[in-house]
Amino acid sequence: MQERVYNFSAGPAVLPLPVLEEAQRDLVALPGVGISVLEISHRSKTFQMIIDEAEANLRKLMNIPDNYKVLFLQGGASLQFGMLPMNLLPAGKSADYIVTGTWSKKAMSEAKTQGNVRCVWNGSETNFDHLPTPEELQANLDPNAAYAYYTSNETIQGVQFPTEPEVGEVPLICDASSEFMYKPLDISKYGCIYACAQKNCGPAGVTIVIMREDLVNASPDNLVSVLSYKKMSDAGSMLNTPPCFAIYVFLLVTEWMLKTVGGIDKMYELNKRKAALLYDVIDQSNGFYVGHARKECRSLMNVPFRTANAELEQKFLEEAKNEGLISLGGHRSVGGFRASIYNAMPLEGVQKLADFMEDFHRRND
Amino acid sequence: MQERVYNFSAGPAVLPLPVLEEAQRDLVALPGVGISVLEISHRSKTFQMIIDEAEANLRKLMNIPDNYKVLFLQGGASLQFGMLPMNLLPAGKSADYIVTGTWSKKAMSEAKTQGNVRCVWNGSETNFDHLPTPEELQANLDPNAAYAYYTSNETIQGVQFPTEPEVGEVPLICDASSEFMYKPLDISKYGCIYACAQKNCGPAGVTIVIMREDLVNASPDNLVSVLSYKKMSDAGSMLNTPPCFAIYVFLLVTEWMLKTVGGIDKMYELNKRKAALLYDVIDQSNGFYVGHARKECRSLMNVPFRTANAELEQKFLEEAKNEGLISLGGHRSVGGFRASIYNAMPLEGVQKLADFMEDFHRRND
Repeated sequence: MQERVYNFSAGPAVLPLPVLEEAQRDLVALPGVGISVLEISHRSKTFQMIIDEAEANLRKLMNIPDNYKVLFLQGGASLQFGMLPMNLLPAGKSADYIVTGTWSKKAMSEAKTQGNVRCVWNGSETNFDHLPTPEELQANLDPNAAYAYYTSNETIQGVQFPTEPEVGEVPLICDASSEFMYKPLDISKYGCIYACAQKNCGPAGVTIVIMREDLVNASPDNLVSVLSYKKMSDAGSMLNTPPCFAIYVFLLVTEWMLKTVGGIDKMYELNKRKAALLYDVIDQSNGFYVGHARKECRSLMNVPFRTANAELEQKFLEEAKNEGLISLGGHRSVGGFRASIYNAMPLEGVQKLADFMEDFHRRND
Repeated sequence: MQERVYNFSAGPAVLPLPVLEEAQRDLVALPGVGISVLEISHRSKTFQMIIDEAEANLRKLMNIPDNYKVLFLQGGASLQFGMLPMNLLPAGKSADYIVTGTWSKKAMSEAKTQGNVRCVWNGSETNFDHLPTPEELQANLDPNAAYAYYTSNETIQGVQFPTEPEVGEVPLICDASSEFMYKPLDISKYGCIYACAQKNCGPAGVTIVIMREDLVNASPDNLVSVLSYKKMSDAGSMLNTPPCFAIYVFLLVTEWMLKTVGGIDKMYELNKRKAALLYDVIDQSNGFYVGHARKECRSLMNVPFRTANAELEQKFLEEAKNEGLISLGGHRSVGGFRASIYNAMPLEGVQKLADFMEDFHRRND
């Protein structure tokens, strides 16, 4: 087997090694089926079991109430940016967007092509290094909005809502792509929470949408069928051929979380430990490393930081790569470095990065 | 390794065994990269090489002219049913649809949600067992149509256009999902030819669109970005995260076609031999087996047939399964059986089915 390195990519991102090993073992022929999961009809009993079990595991892990539907869609978060207003923003209404970074900004911009949109708060002035206060939101939210939209974790800027924004009776829509299943949530607070899989729960190609039934049923009739939440839900996500393999790998990830990690509470504990390792190195570096996000809204998933001395950046990345620590370059809009330490990144990988950062500091101070 | 069976599913469908074996070998860590292709950033050099090589191989196999763009999209053919009129059917124009089976009927129905559509020909009266004559088309085509749309091979009814319908200067749009890359084509005859991968060239999750540049550039500005051909093309299919693994498997399939099969002419020869094996058994069965499509428009890809004695159907399917010949049930709208014998189905598999059919006939006449 090829030697594996620690992959800190923001997405597509690291997957649990046991998941990859199981997918590999069965790739040519699923046991008892005799063909690959890449070849299996979505109308077969075998695939129905795969998608049903994926949903059941997700419902168990996230304690999803019965009046919520689970959908497996294609097109990534970017297609949701369009589907949400197409389905949930009728003419004569407007939707509230909380803009805390690159992804919520994009979501708002796409929604504008489909209907009326209000920007409730925008953190661009400080390059999205913090979140709105509850008071700032209260002062600006529209109680008659069709929905209020936010991005719970901004992958690029590394700001993460510690808890859901309070939006009253307005349906709360959350893009959780880069934190999905990282900690327990009260799903009943959401109108919809969705995530593309390739950051925290699977490979690229499938997007998981959890939506309250009344919102699912609000889809207008005149949409292209695969863009209608209602039609996709009525067909059990199989109005057309779903992305079977990505759903299968998502199933394996949920099994890993249930059986190996031991559930979402355990996952959250581990995620807090991992993030603390890196933020401690940053905070104890006497300014050698500087985090991008303000401390009170730091992400447990994406840790963007830089060195005070920008000339050291290339050296850091090259030496890290030689240590088997890859994809640590920051997004160009923030610069420096970014360590994405999703659910599947093992503690050992984060410890190795923390050790490297300390050593690099020592050698270059 | 698990024993493999012959899979005649209409889609997702059989893949070449060497493709599955290569994907399996490298699934945990790509050689020289140290992480799985399921984990790799779409912004990495490695993935850029994968998508570039997939496109280059496709261009080579299908001899695609330079003024055509190649796109790798999500959402299956069903999303194309919507994207085509969204992008190419402006208000005040209409589009012509040739309805030869279930899939062109669906495409037309979806297009109606987006603009004006004319049905040029409809084969429903005889349950889609044949195609229009050139004269029937000429009499009804609109020379001012925004485009003329057809489905080159109807997966369910097994009717296949032997050559492109003549539509003059109107851009010809072709859903080639269940025959893509089965024979050489003159791409310059098409405005657009597209296919979901899961029938003839890969796993579910990626749709390949080949479109003439002037049509790509016709996308209106007010579309959701991932639904705009122009924006997706300008971004090299990576406006957002593409379905990386499905594109990687598509690359492996194109490599298999180039190196193992020896090109698309060889593929076509093999496809003709395979189809002849089954149609010969049907035609020499003295009416024991009855094909669905009329002889002159029989598909080389999907062979729907039934037994004159419907009571034998369940027995046929069970005995076939015991012989390792699976997914032979016909679609409910046609009944009986359907053998999908796509590019990746080996000659040996078709020979085994033909032998079984003869033997079953002998034992049940």
